[in-house]
Amino acid sequence: MTYEYDRDTAISALGDGLHGAHLSPGWAVGPAINGGYLLAIIGKAVAAELASRTPDKSHPDPFSVSAHFLSAATAGPAYVETKVIRSGGRFSTVEATLVQDVDGARVPRIAALATYGRHRDQHSDRAHDPTSDAAAAALGLALAPPVLPPVEECVVSSDAPPEVREVAPLLLRFGTRFDPATAMWALGQPSGNGLIQGWFKLADDCPLDAVGLLMVVDALPPVTFDLGMIGWAPTLELTAYVRARPAPGWLVVRHQTRTMAGGLFEEDCEVWDSTGTLVAQSRQLALQPRTP
Amino acid sequence: MTYEYDRDTAISALGDGLHGAHLSPGWAVGPAINGGYLLAIIGKAVAAELASRTPDKSHPDPFSVSAHFLSAATAGPAYVETKVIRSGGRFSTVEATLVQDVDGARVPRIAALATYGRHRDQHSDRAHDPTSDAAAAALGLALAPPVLPPVEECVVSSDAPPEVREVAPLLLRFGTRFDPATAMWALGQPSGNGLIQGWFKLADDCPLDAVGLLMVVDALPPVTFDLGMIGWAPTLELTAYVRARPAPGWLVVRHQTRTMAGGLFEEDCEVWDSTGTLVAQSRQLALQPRTP
Repeated sequence: MTYEYDRDTAISALGDGLHGAHLSPGWAVGPAINGGYLLAIIGKAVAAELASRTPDKSHPDPFSVSAHFLSAATAGPAYVETKVIRSGGRFSTVEATLVQDVDGARVPRIAALATYGRHRDQHSDRAHDPTSDAAAAALGLALAPPVLPPVEECVVSSDAPPEVREVAPLLLRFGTRFDPATAMWALGQPSGNGLIQGWFKLADDCPLDAVGLLMVVDALPPVTFDLGMIGWAPTLELTAYVRARPAPGWLVVRHQTRTMAGGLFEEDCEVWDSTGTLVAQSRQLALQPRTP
Repeated sequence: MTYEYDRDTAISALGDGLHGAHLSPGWAVGPAINGGYLLAIIGKAVAAELASRTPDKSHPDPFSVSAHFLSAATAGPAYVETKVIRSGGRFSTVEATLVQDVDGARVPRIAALATYGRHRDQHSDRAHDPTSDAAAAALGLALAPPVLPPVEECVVSSDAPPEVREVAPLLLRFGTRFDPATAMWALGQPSGNGLIQGWFKLADDCPLDAVGLLMVVDALPPVTFDLGMIGWAPTLELTAYVRARPAPGWLVVRHQTRTMAGGLFEEDCEVWDSTGTLVAQSRQLALQPRTP
């Protein structure tokens, strides 16, 4: 395995539904490990568990993964406990909990429910199928990606100020190119729109599959940055939908919030692949930063 | 208990985290029991379990409930198995599974993760708090309800054609008043917008609390009706966020889809109370009907 993402999300089957992992410090943001990186590890463990139980490996792809964040994970050993609660038919569902040992005690970090299946080949010929993507497009229901400036005119995440890179080394893992109009918060001029978008790939060009999209939906900074709130916005819950396997090439990612209420905000994310197909979307509920 | 909703969602503690319920046939839609009604039962069991463990009953309100639908529930006895996986602090998280006995076998219907806490008094004076709703409104982040025609000019759900009422007796439980512009599908003239909205209350005026909102987010017909697809749209997963306790009076509910892909569609729901406050939102991933 030559890619950093592949290495850092590697899991090993330990039997009885248990999968071992090692959380790399390179994916930290402030005091915690990035949630999307942890979701990808959980997603790989679920896929491995299902593959070990069904010889035809019929459910390799996430459709919906709901994660409730319980405590902040730290670099070091971790385990994913899995329990298959539905299998057979079109979908399988797995309970998966990411845990770490702290002074000999089992501490749960993330509790997740994951429903997996097999995504269609998105470009197969199904012209006469009323459930085809072509039929959806004809109904105006193929959500189009935002129009972004060319990659080379966008802002590279690894160009973030040194103090930001220091608290968020994961910026060096990501090859994000921010739409400059939605990155003015980095210069102290947040737009106030609550919108951040850009091109996305991993810095080392590691190709991403359907499970990798679970990382991408939590890869941008919190949209509260664009509201002038540069602070820690802990996620309470995140549900990701993977809608299709991504084609190779640059992804387009958009994060947006519409509602702040009761001290929390929801953050919606959409991800399109290089063919313009919506491949993932997610919504999370997070605590509003109390600063500045 | 004089209200039907209260009666039909009543639960009884059986010890060891187990709660008994009885699913009433009055909440059926076609071959299954309505998902929102089941979520309310799960939500009550979670609240009861948490209340039994914390004498100060500090976490009565749902914040996020993620439900993966495993099989169709039927009228009759049911159980909610609960396991508290985080308690103390600002939030508690509970694993909850709705199960039924079928020929002596335990059959899971819905697997859920629920994060509970205590909602603020939404109208308390927090003028100088940057996380107050007033501050959010000043940022343009207080999502406003749609403007609807007056209740008396809207379409009553119990006026649905007899053949619809027969497959969906829950229409008689609901006092929904549909915005006529989004109910033309009932006359065979779907708008094609994928949007259904209206006023909501229960037919017998039963008051609803924060847990009751878990029922409301799945109370409207699938938005695919408004796309001309009058068919069964089974939910794969639904995550509800409760943002505030509802004030008494009519609620406003909006269901909308933006994306159909791979044979599935996401359906977003928002619920506002009579003061115009967003009190709940949800997103579900459902299978597209194959008809007509």
